[in-house]
Amino acid sequence: MREDGEKDAIAHGGDLDAARRLFPDAPEPWLDLSTGINPVPYPLPPLEASALHRLPSPGDLARLKAAAAAAYGAPGPDHVAAAPGTQILIETLPRLLPPARVAVVGPTYAEHAAAWTRAGHDVRMVDDPAEAAEADILVAVSPNNPDGRVFSVEALAQAGRGLVVLDQAFADLEPVEAASPRPGLVVLRSFGKTYGLAGLRLGFALAEPDLARRIETALGPWAVSGPAILAGLAALPDAAWRREAAAARAQDAARLDRMIARAGGRIVGGTALFRTADFPDGPGLFRALGAAGIYVRRFREAPARLRFGLPPDKAAWCRLSRVLR
Amino acid sequence: MREDGEKDAIAHGGDLDAARRLFPDAPEPWLDLSTGINPVPYPLPPLEASALHRLPSPGDLARLKAAAAAAYGAPGPDHVAAAPGTQILIETLPRLLPPARVAVVGPTYAEHAAAWTRAGHDVRMVDDPAEAAEADILVAVSPNNPDGRVFSVEALAQAGRGLVVLDQAFADLEPVEAASPRPGLVVLRSFGKTYGLAGLRLGFALAEPDLARRIETALGPWAVSGPAILAGLAALPDAAWRREAAAARAQDAARLDRMIARAGGRIVGGTALFRTADFPDGPGLFRALGAAGIYVRRFREAPARLRFGLPPDKAAWCRLSRVLR
Repeated sequence: MREDGEKDAIAHGGDLDAARRLFPDAPEPWLDLSTGINPVPYPLPPLEASALHRLPSPGDLARLKAAAAAAYGAPGPDHVAAAPGTQILIETLPRLLPPARVAVVGPTYAEHAAAWTRAGHDVRMVDDPAEAAEADILVAVSPNNPDGRVFSVEALAQAGRGLVVLDQAFADLEPVEAASPRPGLVVLRSFGKTYGLAGLRLGFALAEPDLARRIETALGPWAVSGPAILAGLAALPDAAWRREAAAARAQDAARLDRMIARAGGRIVGGTALFRTADFPDGPGLFRALGAAGIYVRRFREAPARLRFGLPPDKAAWCRLSRVLR
Repeated sequence: MREDGEKDAIAHGGDLDAARRLFPDAPEPWLDLSTGINPVPYPLPPLEASALHRLPSPGDLARLKAAAAAAYGAPGPDHVAAAPGTQILIETLPRLLPPARVAVVGPTYAEHAAAWTRAGHDVRMVDDPAEAAEADILVAVSPNNPDGRVFSVEALAQAGRGLVVLDQAFADLEPVEAASPRPGLVVLRSFGKTYGLAGLRLGFALAEPDLARRIETALGPWAVSGPAILAGLAALPDAAWRREAAAARAQDAARLDRMIARAGGRIVGGTALFRTADFPDGPGLFRALGAAGIYVRRFREAPARLRFGLPPDKAAWCRLSRVLR
């Protein structure tokens, strides 16, 4: 294993070039289990060419926001800001708010603390929302990535003095409450993870109308692509598909847990789209998986810990099973 | 004509819902000539499904930036920031710079002055770069929208005391110099207009590496979608297609000029992708076009003035010709 790609490899999942640099002799094609993206994508209708050619219209965007409001339980489209992925919302929101004391409940997805810090806020990590009493802004991911911890909206609202930012990127396929925007609460929702369409770039902020409008203004009128709008309009109203996906991915997650346990792993937590476990020799297993062309997520601060996304098909399950024994 | 959609209709082209509100009895389908988007799109290869499903990788983005650097004459990929359209760059750049005196050469695309104003800068419009001697930041669009005025990079660099922001959204198909980024110069380039793929959302800032990196950080690591990256990788290296498109669209533009002159219009200027003209009765012609289901761009401050995009095919040319007589 070469160490020159190490920094990238730890920073984010989904970068197979980094995996290739780490394991130049691994068999191709790689099996990428380093992300928490649904491996069974939503079956999109054929793309209308006009969605590529013309600018998305205000009407297209309004219909997308109405579909998102209905799917996520927001009062209406004026409570929705649409974006090319949630990542850009994580970057943008801190820049719109005056300098504040920000508490991020962690360990969690590292971009939250990084973005608030970059925007000049005073950021500290807390283990529990109850420790955030002095913060003006409380940021939590629920279910949390990578450990699957779930925070109730009520508990967060009581813990936070001011604004609560709740990233529900992994909530769609989970039996957790969907948080509705209300004064003092901003909710982030990811489209790409749930629907297996991460390359399309689509995500939403649910917020009070004034803040939703400020977020949209910062992104400009055509931030979301035509193909992403069409995908959202097709998938967001499809509650039946979400129910089936939730059941199927929960079965996958249980199967993955059994496989991890057989390999000596202790499940820390996760969601229906990824499982996180501690192993007696995490770095050794990361290397064994990498040598077999299987890329999982590791954590700089917790070397024993690995996170596994779901294999997409039977061949991938067999390939993973051959290493996790 | 109903006036309730008026504000939208003037703010931006491309919104056929606004056209329908203004002319509820017009024949469908509408012929949208309200934008400056190439009506003959680049012939994209079939889309790989993986571009929709997986997150774009750092390697994908690096290849896109290298292709953009080569196509636009930037020294290298570190001088390029890729974005989901130039609009979000117009919004983002002013938020990254400390409050300054900004001069915008106009009349021009209204979002420039609006975005600098929203970000707290002191903005004034100037007719000519030479009037911007006291500004810290000089913003110009060249070729300009809607009048086609062209400013030389040298003239802008001499007129500006500090940073020059040059929007070359319409430069690709024109016989104008391509501006290369250098200290004190940021260039914006639009992909969607040139290649007729505005719905994909792709645009670039060419800047010194430090500023390019700051722009990218503000947008986050996956701001550009997988389909947009593939389209950029296919189209940006294709100089032969660009040459043919430039010749064909220039012929279209000349044909449109003749048609406009026949209808009593005086050509103000334009580019190969749109033509702007003053008419003895601009509002009347706007209404006649709208009643025939043809949507063009008008201007609140210049009622005599209309801007025409290029018709996409023979039927559309005939349709336009029947009104412009």
